Amino acid sequence: MTQATPARQLLEVAYDEAQRGLAEGGIPIGAALFAANGTLLGRGHNRRVQSGDPSMHAETDAFRAAGRRRDYGSTIMVTTLSPCWYCSGLVRQFGIGAVIIGESQTFHGGHDWLAEHGVAVTVLEDERCVQMMTDFIVDNPALWHEDIGVATEVEAQ
Amino acid sequence: MTQATPARQLLEVAYDEAQRGLAEGGIPIGAALFAANGTLLGRGHNRRVQSGDPSMHAETDAFRAAGRRRDYGSTIMVTTLSPCWYCSGLVRQFGIGAVIIGESQTFHGGHDWLAEHGVAVTVLEDERCVQMMTDFIVDNPALWHEDIGVATEVEAQ
Repeated sequence: MTQATPARQLLEVAYDEAQRGLAEGGIPIGAALFAANGTLLGRGHNRRVQSGDPSMHAETDAFRAAGRRRDYGSTIMVTTLSPCWYCSGLVRQFGIGAVIIGESQTFHGGHDWLAEHGVAVTVLEDERCVQMMTDFIVDNPALWHEDIGVATEVEAQ
Repeated sequence: MTQATPARQLLEVAYDEAQRGLAEGGIPIGAALFAANGTLLGRGHNRRVQSGDPSMHAETDAFRAAGRRRDYGSTIMVTTLSPCWYCSGLVRQFGIGAVIIGESQTFHGGHDWLAEHGVAVTVLEDERCVQMMTDFIVDNPALWHEDIGVATEVEAQ
């Protein structure tokens, strides 16, 4: 990330993706993959509802949109929400060098694990991101739990 | 897994998927998700080459094919190769209860981590699976390294 592209500016792209997902009736989580100089490589959002596809979390959708690449070491994954184990595993396996996270208050995924394994993790705790997910979870608890594989809490709704 | 569906029988489906991928010119890794009683829920294979999609590893393709589900606790993920961190993260996040692995000799992914976190892991070290990946890696080292995010070794080819 250069001086010209501070973390909060990169987050705007992910936030816009989350808002697109929300407008489509989906889960509002967005992500984008950037080169070190701030060039956008791919952007995407959660598509569980829209595509009936449980494998398309925001990060995987952005990763897919960036196409085939040989070296992710200098890339930056930006996501509106702390990445779950699935998406954290993606970051670790492909050696994505940095992760910028909108917020980790509504969901605490694997970003501590990533930091332990050398990924440069920035958590912004952006208030808009917190509010967006807080509102969504209150209104759609079963859908949210489905997206993170929490079966028992869904049963308790 | 019931007595009627031993691990090696379930592996046949994943192996068949890997062979399909190979016939398509792709990376020969296959997977399938089963219910506890042996019912097939979804099957798939690596689609990096065929779809130009780096997000579709065998396990994610099988997971996608199984569609939206609320509870994976009693499901079994069968894969021809030890799951990478990305696919191991998938198993952990969605609480897939068991993983049956064809082989872990050509690639040792995150299955020890999964076992530490309560997943029932079975590694068969099936000779056909070992041979299939050994042959593929010898013939396609750059493609293989790309699929697991190993950039430096690709450079060294």
